[in-house]
Amino acid sequence: MKVNIVKKEAVLGIDIGGTNTVFGVMEQNGNYIFKDSIPTIRQEKAEKLFTRLFDKFNKHIKILPEIKIIGVGIGAPNANYYKGTVENPVNLNWGVVDVVNLVKKYIDLPIFITNDANIAAIGEMKFGAAKGLKNFIEITLGTGVGSGVIVNGDLVYGQDGFAGELGHVIVEKNGRKCGCGRRGCLEAYASASGIVRNAYNLLVNDNNDSKIANIPFSDLTSKIIYDFAIEGDLVAKQAFEVTGEYLGRAFADFTAIFCPEAIIIYGGIARAGDILLNPIKKHLEDNVMEIFKGKVKIIESGLSEEDIAVMGAGAFCWHKLKK
Amino acid sequence: MKVNIVKKEAVLGIDIGGTNTVFGVMEQNGNYIFKDSIPTIRQEKAEKLFTRLFDKFNKHIKILPEIKIIGVGIGAPNANYYKGTVENPVNLNWGVVDVVNLVKKYIDLPIFITNDANIAAIGEMKFGAAKGLKNFIEITLGTGVGSGVIVNGDLVYGQDGFAGELGHVIVEKNGRKCGCGRRGCLEAYASASGIVRNAYNLLVNDNNDSKIANIPFSDLTSKIIYDFAIEGDLVAKQAFEVTGEYLGRAFADFTAIFCPEAIIIYGGIARAGDILLNPIKKHLEDNVMEIFKGKVKIIESGLSEEDIAVMGAGAFCWHKLKK
Repeated sequence: MKVNIVKKEAVLGIDIGGTNTVFGVMEQNGNYIFKDSIPTIRQEKAEKLFTRLFDKFNKHIKILPEIKIIGVGIGAPNANYYKGTVENPVNLNWGVVDVVNLVKKYIDLPIFITNDANIAAIGEMKFGAAKGLKNFIEITLGTGVGSGVIVNGDLVYGQDGFAGELGHVIVEKNGRKCGCGRRGCLEAYASASGIVRNAYNLLVNDNNDSKIANIPFSDLTSKIIYDFAIEGDLVAKQAFEVTGEYLGRAFADFTAIFCPEAIIIYGGIARAGDILLNPIKKHLEDNVMEIFKGKVKIIESGLSEEDIAVMGAGAFCWHKLKK
Repeated sequence: MKVNIVKKEAVLGIDIGGTNTVFGVMEQNGNYIFKDSIPTIRQEKAEKLFTRLFDKFNKHIKILPEIKIIGVGIGAPNANYYKGTVENPVNLNWGVVDVVNLVKKYIDLPIFITNDANIAAIGEMKFGAAKGLKNFIEITLGTGVGSGVIVNGDLVYGQDGFAGELGHVIVEKNGRKCGCGRRGCLEAYASASGIVRNAYNLLVNDNNDSKIANIPFSDLTSKIIYDFAIEGDLVAKQAFEVTGEYLGRAFADFTAIFCPEAIIIYGGIARAGDILLNPIKKHLEDNVMEIFKGKVKIIESGLSEEDIAVMGAGAFCWHKLKK
């Protein structure tokens, strides 16, 4: 007698990070069947990374006959949704790789890829602070300032999959040099290194006493500034206020453009809490057009950084499959 | 014997302008069955305007038994797509009017309303320079600077129907006073009065000879500046260059945000042609992120201002009905 087992549908979510590549098999409700990770090796080519990943994946899946994988979602730096490629990621020696077709060799299913910030936005919409929202902006505050924008319930990809570079709008004409080569981008004022530059700029201009003056510029981090601010260091607190002002002013522009229900921030600096959120909210309201006042919520992400990446990759796959 | 006539489906498009309200009955391919207009009377309440409009409409439609109207699209200033309202339009003594429910009393069909710039974007997508595009920005350069943004083939409305105020992003921190009450908006530098202010600002700062110096500030118009520029007046030409620089720099930011296939400009100033388009293109390319260079086309609208408004209103109705 043949027994038909109704298999449980799940997707594989993969987050390719600079240090670790995390992957997990997830049901549509966000429930993990399993989660695992492998180290990301900078010098290694993409094919080797996926060989190591699928070796581990296959060991897991072999002992789970009741699970049916129906798709793969991948989050990666410089990923192009339309082309299925990852193009010259800063921290990986990959060059341009056709990731979707590469992964198809390991698992022949629908495969979707997009960049980390877009993944974060979808993860937030399905499982985090943006549940139920159809128009919101996810801002990632870390080494850079990234963003994923949701309009009418879907991601803004633009003509070529590279839209949503909200960290690279100009907030100071002829301002600070940005990593992108231009001057005055939001990222140069609100990323982890942006807040370090804000702190040193305050020292330079106001000459107030601060423990920051004892730390060399190249050793100072947003975490140190945060710790000093909590201890009451005036300059450290001002550095967060200045960062919040830049973000709040930029968010006023983003509101004129998108009028989102919420702007959600995540990443290391976002965890500073009220010492950053309060100045953001103040300067957003001070600078936004009259018709938008009081309308846009500023919220901290509802997910941990690891969850947003892996759950987001899985959620992205479900989002595309169910369209 | 009863004869069944297959009726031709058409929609009614209405553009409520400051001077005239134009309306037309249009097939899906953009073919007009008829077009007519009534004067818009500032002091009059909305109900009276629509009574006059539908009196005229009914006379037309009475002699067209082969036409079946299946919906109404309306473009109006300060129109809210979600609520169906027009809210405190500057040039009309309306206050807040529930236009959709008001018009339903005259014609009980699906009725859709949105603001002029959104209508222009839809008209451009169906019949103008944006045919076939799914990601583009329509910028209207006139008394103000308006915009309609198309993402994934649909309009960006935002949480409340008021998204797409690209004329009110800040291009000069603590800059010129804008009509919206704030300082430094793009509109204060690139609207019809913005270019007048640019011209006078050049006189003030550079003190060069110009025929503009003979015209009082309150009499100067973008049309006069254009005529002087064509005659070779240096300051008048520079006024267009400065205006184009502000637009080009702002478009570089819009590109980082949306990466559109094209940015399409329409309205009085847009008709200046190359003396405006060339500096826009130059400053866009000079200021855009490396990955976006050469990707975004700057195009003049493919429709006249009247056509974009009425055909746009009709196209908007078709767009909503066929969703």
